[in-house]
Amino acid sequence: MLSIQEAAARLNAHERIRVLTHQSPDGDTLGCAGALCLGLRALGKQAQYVCADPIPEKYQNMLRPLTVQTFDPDYIVAVDVADSKLLGALEPVYAHCTDLGLDHHGSNTGWTQEAVVDASAGAACEVIALLLREMNVPITPDVADCLYTGLCTDTGCFRYSNTTPRTLRLAAELMESGADAAAINMRMFEIKTRSRLAIERMALDGLEYAFEHRVAIMVLSQEMIAVSGATDSDLDGLAPIPRNIEGVQIGITIRERAPGDYKISVRTGNMVDASALCRTLGGGGHMRAAGCRLNGSREDVVQRMIDASASFVRTEDTR
Amino acid sequence: MLSIQEAAARLNAHERIRVLTHQSPDGDTLGCAGALCLGLRALGKQAQYVCADPIPEKYQNMLRPLTVQTFDPDYIVAVDVADSKLLGALEPVYAHCTDLGLDHHGSNTGWTQEAVVDASAGAACEVIALLLREMNVPITPDVADCLYTGLCTDTGCFRYSNTTPRTLRLAAELMESGADAAAINMRMFEIKTRSRLAIERMALDGLEYAFEHRVAIMVLSQEMIAVSGATDSDLDGLAPIPRNIEGVQIGITIRERAPGDYKISVRTGNMVDASALCRTLGGGGHMRAAGCRLNGSREDVVQRMIDASASFVRTEDTR
Repeated sequence: MLSIQEAAARLNAHERIRVLTHQSPDGDTLGCAGALCLGLRALGKQAQYVCADPIPEKYQNMLRPLTVQTFDPDYIVAVDVADSKLLGALEPVYAHCTDLGLDHHGSNTGWTQEAVVDASAGAACEVIALLLREMNVPITPDVADCLYTGLCTDTGCFRYSNTTPRTLRLAAELMESGADAAAINMRMFEIKTRSRLAIERMALDGLEYAFEHRVAIMVLSQEMIAVSGATDSDLDGLAPIPRNIEGVQIGITIRERAPGDYKISVRTGNMVDASALCRTLGGGGHMRAAGCRLNGSREDVVQRMIDASASFVRTEDTR
Repeated sequence: MLSIQEAAARLNAHERIRVLTHQSPDGDTLGCAGALCLGLRALGKQAQYVCADPIPEKYQNMLRPLTVQTFDPDYIVAVDVADSKLLGALEPVYAHCTDLGLDHHGSNTGWTQEAVVDASAGAACEVIALLLREMNVPITPDVADCLYTGLCTDTGCFRYSNTTPRTLRLAAELMESGADAAAINMRMFEIKTRSRLAIERMALDGLEYAFEHRVAIMVLSQEMIAVSGATDSDLDGLAPIPRNIEGVQIGITIRERAPGDYKISVRTGNMVDASALCRTLGGGGHMRAAGCRLNGSREDVVQRMIDASASFVRTEDTR
């Protein structure tokens, strides 16, 4: 594992740097890529990011200052990519030739030649911020916008438990460097598409409860997704809805991926181990967010999730 | 206007302090009250807050460490109360005998004998934090929970434009002092009651658009409120929904207060002056959030809002 100082020395020693993001790119991987490329260019280097998937519209504004540069790289860096599989279509090209990983996932597989992995960072952008500071890169408003976007999207705008005092202080510095925090937060968190509202409404219409409202189940059928016109980006963020209902201990979101093929997300409050619940059905995950995959009819899948919840739901009226 | 140092001296010179909050209490006024009372008690003084209205359930946890003290006060302080009218039922008693106001509203009417008003503070709790520091009060985890609650609720968890670098740095310090930020954020922002979900669903079902989806209108009828069982607290926070739909320039929420009596909230993006729009209907407010009151049938009121919007909606496809 490299220190920030060592990683800075590696980057300083190279001139043409390619930056890899993960597939289905989010605000953190793109914020890292944008800030790192802008920072390296400010030092007179060439730098360009690549991504296997299209860039969602809400991140395009932040990346606009980065005009495309074409060059043959002498150094390859992956940002916020815990596993080479997450490169998506870029994996065959870069899985075995990436020089440096900059990441905050404790689960990083060590797939890059060298890496900085700081699992205490709320976002990979915290690592990039430390690195740019080490390299004496000026934090311009454009760089600050990128880093702030990564911080706020990965921490649910500083709501989640991965937010640390360091995260908040860095956000303060980025505001002072010119990050347009209020506008970014509006774009990232407030604005919903009409398709997203439509699928949310249909999903809420069909919300089911079990065990005296301690378990809530939301189904997103292929038909609902088609009728609403919801994209993957619209469907992101629906999974917490059932768990976030007052009194619910286990929130279950059942998404039909293909006819009869269901991807299940389980979110829990403080009382229930979501990972253990999903393991009983062949899945897994974290204590408060886990998942599994089930096949069958919708009714059958709902019933199996209710049955699986029976031995996990607590009779105390608490979360 | 007093300085923080002068306000600290006033409090240091008294022993039995009553703290007044505003009616319909929110996280900021109660966070101020909780932190200030706990801090004053840590200095060996008696301190008790009073409020005209019941304390919403989600704030009770934070106030639990404050056992009730009964005493005859020698000093009366109002926290986050911009106008004596906001004392509600307490107004007749305290409108003319309140010694000190601690506030962050630029619109503070100066109704207290003396006051600290810092309009640059994202929350009144920022003022209380500065004051407690000046008085050398130890920031215990209980005090930190109160102050953090005020900060995060008044800034939309650091999303809104009233969030400053000072707000974020104070939040970082409060986490280091033991504020349970993730749990507070969950309680304040994630959890919704079933009634709130029910009224949200009904409101979304009836969402209307005008001017090629640049105006969105949501009606909350008395029947919907009754059927859903939604409380005022549930209805809080519904007003931004229409404005937060992609492409919407003017979001209008029409709430039926009594049969044929409608309270209208208008929220706008960067393009439209909500206050000017509402003034054409006898109302007023701020640039991005304003309101008015209309009487008539539901259809009539909706049509009048659409008509009033006609000269404000912009043909450019932007917010």
